[in-house]
Amino acid sequence: MTIPAESFGNAGPGGLIGLDWGTSRLRAFLMDDSGRLLEAREQPWGIRFLPEGGCERAYADMTAGWPILPSIACGMVGSSLGWREAPYVELPADASELANGLVRVNTTRAAPLYIVPGLHNANGPDVMRGEETQLIGGLDGRRGLQGASTWILPGTHSKWVSVRHNRIVDFATVMTGELYAVLGRYSILHWNQSKADQPLDVQAFTRGVVAARESGCQGGFSRLFTARSLMLDGLFEKEAVADYLSGLLIGEELRSMVSGRRFDSGAAIQLVGANTLCERYVCAAKVFDLNLEGPNTADSAKGLWRISQLAKITGVYP
Amino acid sequence: MTIPAESFGNAGPGGLIGLDWGTSRLRAFLMDDSGRLLEAREQPWGIRFLPEGGCERAYADMTAGWPILPSIACGMVGSSLGWREAPYVELPADASELANGLVRVNTTRAAPLYIVPGLHNANGPDVMRGEETQLIGGLDGRRGLQGASTWILPGTHSKWVSVRHNRIVDFATVMTGELYAVLGRYSILHWNQSKADQPLDVQAFTRGVVAARESGCQGGFSRLFTARSLMLDGLFEKEAVADYLSGLLIGEELRSMVSGRRFDSGAAIQLVGANTLCERYVCAAKVFDLNLEGPNTADSAKGLWRISQLAKITGVYP
Repeated sequence: MTIPAESFGNAGPGGLIGLDWGTSRLRAFLMDDSGRLLEAREQPWGIRFLPEGGCERAYADMTAGWPILPSIACGMVGSSLGWREAPYVELPADASELANGLVRVNTTRAAPLYIVPGLHNANGPDVMRGEETQLIGGLDGRRGLQGASTWILPGTHSKWVSVRHNRIVDFATVMTGELYAVLGRYSILHWNQSKADQPLDVQAFTRGVVAARESGCQGGFSRLFTARSLMLDGLFEKEAVADYLSGLLIGEELRSMVSGRRFDSGAAIQLVGANTLCERYVCAAKVFDLNLEGPNTADSAKGLWRISQLAKITGVYP
Repeated sequence: MTIPAESFGNAGPGGLIGLDWGTSRLRAFLMDDSGRLLEAREQPWGIRFLPEGGCERAYADMTAGWPILPSIACGMVGSSLGWREAPYVELPADASELANGLVRVNTTRAAPLYIVPGLHNANGPDVMRGEETQLIGGLDGRRGLQGASTWILPGTHSKWVSVRHNRIVDFATVMTGELYAVLGRYSILHWNQSKADQPLDVQAFTRGVVAARESGCQGGFSRLFTARSLMLDGLFEKEAVADYLSGLLIGEELRSMVSGRRFDSGAAIQLVGANTLCERYVCAAKVFDLNLEGPNTADSAKGLWRISQLAKITGVYP
């Protein structure tokens, strides 16, 4: 989304630049002094794919033409491989604890940049960087979810999160997206990657979800090889392997996490993430008689705003 | 193993050439007219890594200097990507059914080559090519295992097999080895591949096995990310990730297959495969209070001999 420069004049004297800076992409948000989104930009400059000049250069190019404002960034930018390491905050945690843990970086621009720390969960152990900010954004203003809710943030490393009394009290990582990617690219189950843009084969996908559900305590990975043998048997087309495997892996994530009973599937379950991926989770959840609340995609900007308010870093600078 | 050419003179007028021809390697056995192994050769000429000239050339080079004898081959050489497709034989099956399903190939040498069919299991569905011949060899002469036994053939695609009354009655494939390879090479858990020759870190391995066992119905894949978070927490060295993951995946194979109760873990459980890999299974099985009978590595030659006897294809040719 790009809002024409003319409307920027409305930003007034304050505002904030927010950055959602992950492993593979960088998104930037220009907000006015009430947190209203004025312009959003996106580049494939994740911390593993930085342009020459590194984080400094990516940051300067990403915010070119925007006013000099305090910036706040979340995600892998705060890891040991990012711009500056921001030590993890221990669970349970809420937006205030994240605000207290911000790490300041001096930049070549005349305003500082703050990095949101990740969260560490001794129960696991487990870690996240970036999802905590999406969650803070997702919780903002939604009182019905603040008391007790379960959150699913699907992706390369899916996160399941428990919220109690507006605090993040537990989470776990499942490597669903990464397994799908490496199996599709490098294993005997590999498929033609150019198929990625085609619409979901709902029948093959659901067949995978059901296979995972019916695996019971054996687990869906005991069914992986069926992606090949069903195809050898002519029981489905080679083109359906990708969607069958997607269903098997997402179904296994649901089966495993529900059977573990660590995350309350009786509470409201809220999805956060990209629409196309979340649609698969909604589809798979029906096979498990779970009702997932539809996805919310723009929450990292809201979370960055909320944390910056608590840390009082918005406004004119210097 | 290479036995000096001098001893070959003892082969007499008959004999057999056996080939264990998989995806990544080719092994050849020269046997005398009583099935005694005279010479074994091995090359990395699996059907995915054939030299120029393909199967014909690999076969000719592999048997160069050996007498003109009937040959019999098992493994992926009989798949649609191999030399000649040998249609699967349906379960239940024994050595006679495999002998009846042999497919004859005419070669440039003056003796025919026969390809052992793979097995198809409608319960799955599932397939194998090569392991059935190792099993026939393993069962040969071992009366204690012929009545009722469970077999584990670990590898890229591990097989669990049920034997009843000297027949193969059920099997299932678990992709343990392939998952270990692709995760180690391409995922966020990747490690330095040059570590492959180092001795097993038994402590890290066992920790992985225990994590899989304790995952219960959730399954070991819900614990994959701990390979990273334990390392980030400084709870083990980066170098231990490979062995921890190996333990987690082999442990998950055992947990999953035992909990499925499809394969009788009360019967004798026999391992067949390479020593170093089988040692890991023996080590992991102890964590599950399972007793695995030590590995048997040379069974494919025995199996090829047994099947050729039933098909009466040994002897002088023409």
